Amino acid sequence: MEIAHPYLLFLGDVPDDLAAKTAYGIVDWRRDWCLGQLRFPGCGADAELPDMGVGAAVAAGARTMIVGVVNPGGVLPEHWVSTIVEALDAGMDVASGLHVRLSSVPAIAEAAARNGRRLFDVRHSTERFTTGKGTRRPGRRILTVGTDCSVGKKYTALALEKAMRARGLDADFRATGQTGIFISGRGVSVDAVVADFISGAAEWLTPAADPNHWDVVEGQGSLFHPSFAGVTLGLLHGAQPDAFVVCHEPTRTSMRNVSHPLPSIREVIEATVYMGRLTNPDIRCVGISINTEKLGDAEARALCKDTAIEYGLPTTDPIRFGVEGIVERLIREFPAV
Amino acid sequence: MEIAHPYLLFLGDVPDDLAAKTAYGIVDWRRDWCLGQLRFPGCGADAELPDMGVGAAVAAGARTMIVGVVNPGGVLPEHWVSTIVEALDAGMDVASGLHVRLSSVPAIAEAAARNGRRLFDVRHSTERFTTGKGTRRPGRRILTVGTDCSVGKKYTALALEKAMRARGLDADFRATGQTGIFISGRGVSVDAVVADFISGAAEWLTPAADPNHWDVVEGQGSLFHPSFAGVTLGLLHGAQPDAFVVCHEPTRTSMRNVSHPLPSIREVIEATVYMGRLTNPDIRCVGISINTEKLGDAEARALCKDTAIEYGLPTTDPIRFGVEGIVERLIREFPAV
Repeated sequence: MEIAHPYLLFLGDVPDDLAAKTAYGIVDWRRDWCLGQLRFPGCGADAELPDMGVGAAVAAGARTMIVGVVNPGGVLPEHWVSTIVEALDAGMDVASGLHVRLSSVPAIAEAAARNGRRLFDVRHSTERFTTGKGTRRPGRRILTVGTDCSVGKKYTALALEKAMRARGLDADFRATGQTGIFISGRGVSVDAVVADFISGAAEWLTPAADPNHWDVVEGQGSLFHPSFAGVTLGLLHGAQPDAFVVCHEPTRTSMRNVSHPLPSIREVIEATVYMGRLTNPDIRCVGISINTEKLGDAEARALCKDTAIEYGLPTTDPIRFGVEGIVERLIREFPAV
Repeated sequence: MEIAHPYLLFLGDVPDDLAAKTAYGIVDWRRDWCLGQLRFPGCGADAELPDMGVGAAVAAGARTMIVGVVNPGGVLPEHWVSTIVEALDAGMDVASGLHVRLSSVPAIAEAAARNGRRLFDVRHSTERFTTGKGTRRPGRRILTVGTDCSVGKKYTALALEKAMRARGLDADFRATGQTGIFISGRGVSVDAVVADFISGAAEWLTPAADPNHWDVVEGQGSLFHPSFAGVTLGLLHGAQPDAFVVCHEPTRTSMRNVSHPLPSIREVIEATVYMGRLTNPDIRCVGISINTEKLGDAEARALCKDTAIEYGLPTTDPIRFGVEGIVERLIREFPAV
């Protein structure tokens, strides 16, 4: 079940850029899938797409309207409903990353049924998973892991997919969170799966494939985050990665939303190998991705260089310096079979 | 929200003992909460309680009818519905461990509403959890962990509660699965919680308490089980145990329902300390519990003795030899404050 593109990005009247973060991520990675943005008067966000209404978007070929916004509580404001109904009536599917389900709003559910259109609530998988089995399966997998949440695991995975494809590798990004699902048109929000099925959902997401095919799996949480380590471990076991990249944000002083200190990159490498070898005995780290957004250029460059020497691993900021060094390492360590 | 006792155990017409395992567990640990069993003609199970109908049970003071059975698919057979409705009409609450929700059957939902009675679907928590925080909180906690699923973690925890209370300790069993919830009247099926909230649910289950109070937490899965390790880790982080007991079944050759070999007891101790220290830096193993059901008496005794010497830890089969040695160790290592 894939979300069809091109997209119309619905921004409504969200107050600021932060509330439109999901939409911005889609534009960053899939600009060619986006026809336009739909904004209400007073909208404080701008995805730098042509402004258009439902009619113009459909006329231009839009197939899905994406409610790519976040708001406190994940609710769906009452005054957005009529535009969503209008989109369904005009022939588009609608996809949302809000906590509230589109299908739980009667007017929206009725409009979808009336028009035979699909509603995607990407935080809530409709897939029925089985429990993970841990059996080795063909195909190669690379997973991004983190010293913390929100350190660039999704961006690193997307940058890897792009660079791997540029080098002629057969690589597919595998989304495990809502923004990633919009960016790839499919995936599963693993943190919204029932706990028994975390590794099973990860196995479903990264199925048996050609021996030279790479799944590039978006990581979640951190093995060292007291809120989410269970999700991280289930994803690690289900994805059974051959390789992983550690993502890190060097200026953070405590783990996101809790008071725990950040682990070192070395601790993350050790714990990932220690726990990951259960389903892939040959798991290994192939690179380090540092989010240097808050550092100056010289400082960022020095940090990457020092880290590369310390760990003997290609180290980069994907946005600033690209991930070609990591892909180089990957190709060397995993020659085509 | 506690399930009120005394109970009437509904066995219906399940074919054999295995299907009534939940009911047997309740009788094993809470015989004094059970007034009787309700069986249909052809029932192949017997919990060794007086047979009685709904009317007799209510007259004797029964407050909840427990559907303490399992069946393929976790469905609720059509011909059980009228007895459940009868129980609600007679003034009892009804609790079920089936996958299907009692409240999803219209006749049952209506009877509950009509009579102001409560329905408990213990596989599906109605509690709203928050994400875990990992903050240290007062009170002591002991968790049972396993080399595999179904190796005696619940029985060990219940035996510990009983023996700790006998030694005058203030101890409460904390249920994390359906049978345990019936046995203690409360708890949470952690494997049925949404993945994001595993450690949060475990924190809710084992809240801040008197510094000398012990939560005796029923473990789930195994850090070495590729299907469920995420649940195990979330529970470990949320419970932040001071102490743990490793449970083991010595005759098993592969992990339950998968092809992975069993880890050694040593590997489980090491991994539990390695991962558990994130939320409790002083976590330590205080004993080993071996399910020797399939061994002869001399063999069982020898295995416990040899294991105790190898690990330097009290080692026992809770059913066969009791857990006093482990409680002794616990008292020595954690003197009252």
